[in-house]
Amino acid sequence: MTNKTYFEDFLSYLTAKQLNQSPQKLYEPINYILNLGGKRIRPIVALAACHLFDNDYQKALPAALAIEVFHNFTLVHDDIMDKADIRRGKPTVHKKYNTNQAILSGDLMQLYAYQILCAYTEPHKSPLLDIFTRTGIEVCEGQQWDMEFEERNDVTIDEYIQMIKYKTAVLLAASLQMGAIIGNASNQDISLLQQYGINIGLAFQIQDDFLDTFGETAAVGKKIGGDIQQNKKTILYLNALQKANPNQKARLLELYQLTPQDSTAKIAEVIQIFKDLNIHTSTQTLIEEYTNIAMDALKAVNVDENRKEFLYQLTAQLMGRKF
Amino acid sequence: MTNKTYFEDFLSYLTAKQLNQSPQKLYEPINYILNLGGKRIRPIVALAACHLFDNDYQKALPAALAIEVFHNFTLVHDDIMDKADIRRGKPTVHKKYNTNQAILSGDLMQLYAYQILCAYTEPHKSPLLDIFTRTGIEVCEGQQWDMEFEERNDVTIDEYIQMIKYKTAVLLAASLQMGAIIGNASNQDISLLQQYGINIGLAFQIQDDFLDTFGETAAVGKKIGGDIQQNKKTILYLNALQKANPNQKARLLELYQLTPQDSTAKIAEVIQIFKDLNIHTSTQTLIEEYTNIAMDALKAVNVDENRKEFLYQLTAQLMGRKF
Repeated sequence: MTNKTYFEDFLSYLTAKQLNQSPQKLYEPINYILNLGGKRIRPIVALAACHLFDNDYQKALPAALAIEVFHNFTLVHDDIMDKADIRRGKPTVHKKYNTNQAILSGDLMQLYAYQILCAYTEPHKSPLLDIFTRTGIEVCEGQQWDMEFEERNDVTIDEYIQMIKYKTAVLLAASLQMGAIIGNASNQDISLLQQYGINIGLAFQIQDDFLDTFGETAAVGKKIGGDIQQNKKTILYLNALQKANPNQKARLLELYQLTPQDSTAKIAEVIQIFKDLNIHTSTQTLIEEYTNIAMDALKAVNVDENRKEFLYQLTAQLMGRKF
Repeated sequence: MTNKTYFEDFLSYLTAKQLNQSPQKLYEPINYILNLGGKRIRPIVALAACHLFDNDYQKALPAALAIEVFHNFTLVHDDIMDKADIRRGKPTVHKKYNTNQAILSGDLMQLYAYQILCAYTEPHKSPLLDIFTRTGIEVCEGQQWDMEFEERNDVTIDEYIQMIKYKTAVLLAASLQMGAIIGNASNQDISLLQQYGINIGLAFQIQDDFLDTFGETAAVGKKIGGDIQQNKKTILYLNALQKANPNQKARLLELYQLTPQDSTAKIAEVIQIFKDLNIHTSTQTLIEEYTNIAMDALKAVNVDENRKEFLYQLTAQLMGRKF
């Protein structure tokens, strides 16, 4: 019951389900994006959640694929909206093919995900489709908030949390719920796994913002301060704006209009303001709070503790600490 | 049991289901496109199909709305791909708002359609979702073929028929099937209504091509020869290319490269070639064949003939002739 097994099971299944239909130009971009790689975190937790309740966790493979297809659909369309050229070191779908193709193949991916789920039978089919649909709507709402927040300077922490909850945490939670449903879990356990998913998703996203600014280059694997350089309105920035005195606020707003050739001084100045405002500490506290809520929910799931070993390990891995 | 009743029932339902959720910028474009008008042919036949089997046809209203939402989603995304500025005399969604908004609100429309269908219960929910999903995939495939055919000069009549079948006829057929399912029709009758829908959809689309070139301006309500002026590869053009001798073919290909200021002479020359090749007659025969198959399927539906009165009238109206 290791990460590696779920990962490999999923990749084998994905390969077996390669799309060879006609019209080939419609389906090829779907194979392309699905094979670009990635951590496959959503499929993995779907399988792991099913495995909590049922040794035959492979019956969650179709649901895992549907979720991965939906997630990749959002990447294809988000990359168009963000005018992003590169994803996972390769050209984005609209760059490799063209924007019209990326729109249409993306549209089909939503339907393809539903087609996969429609092959389940009752009592699983109906709740899977309900959760998947509600989650998909929330993901779109999250993307909308994200787009709107780019234009605003008065975004509150609560609004930001709500945005990342919808944009990313709910799909992680849905993966766990759907796996649990297929494993015939009780409603109580399905709900606990949803809570685990939402809160660990939030903790992970906030940590992602945190590490970009306060991490160590080696650990993060990318240059420190990238978000600041790109004037990204992270939770650190929003929190700082709220806590800042008028001078600090004016300076932050000013710095976030600049894109200097060499951003070293700008990054250093922003980080100093963050530190002066204790953003470092308050963000760590927030991460810890969400992680603890997540862990409590997972602990409360009514199966033998040793069945949860994988999810404990995964959480530790994601959050860079032991539990 | 008149067209007007179904139409008004649907519009009342649509108004009652106006979307007022937040984020408002995400939902407003959906209300906008859904309220642009149109014949509402798909919702109407969904209600009529249910009414064949069950007097309480209003229970098909949610399915009718889901289908109309899906249809309008395809319009929103197709208009982006076609760079179309105007739809039903008003700005298209991506013109009124912006392209990113049109992509995202369109994406949400697919999910919203599923959400509406997910509110049905068994034994209807599962077959409704199956048909809807299969049909949605076919609609995307049809749009793909349509895009690819623009680049090709060797499209066969069979390929063209397949394209319009997927791009438009299957959704009309699905509307009828879904209405019939909600009316608890037999599988035999559901299948007959599918055949009726596919064939009347094909007949109508081919007639649309035909009337643009061989109709009378007053009857068509737009200028004759618009398709020729725009070099649109209609079934008339494709059929002509196949039947043409080398000289005629060369001339047709040449004419379809031109966009003269005054297209009167070009239109007249193309129409003359069409007439020389008997495209006029062979297309009318094709329309008649599909209409007859459709009518035979409708006649075979196992309910009292007077319950079919509305669909007979609608067919006559669509095809401009009595049966």
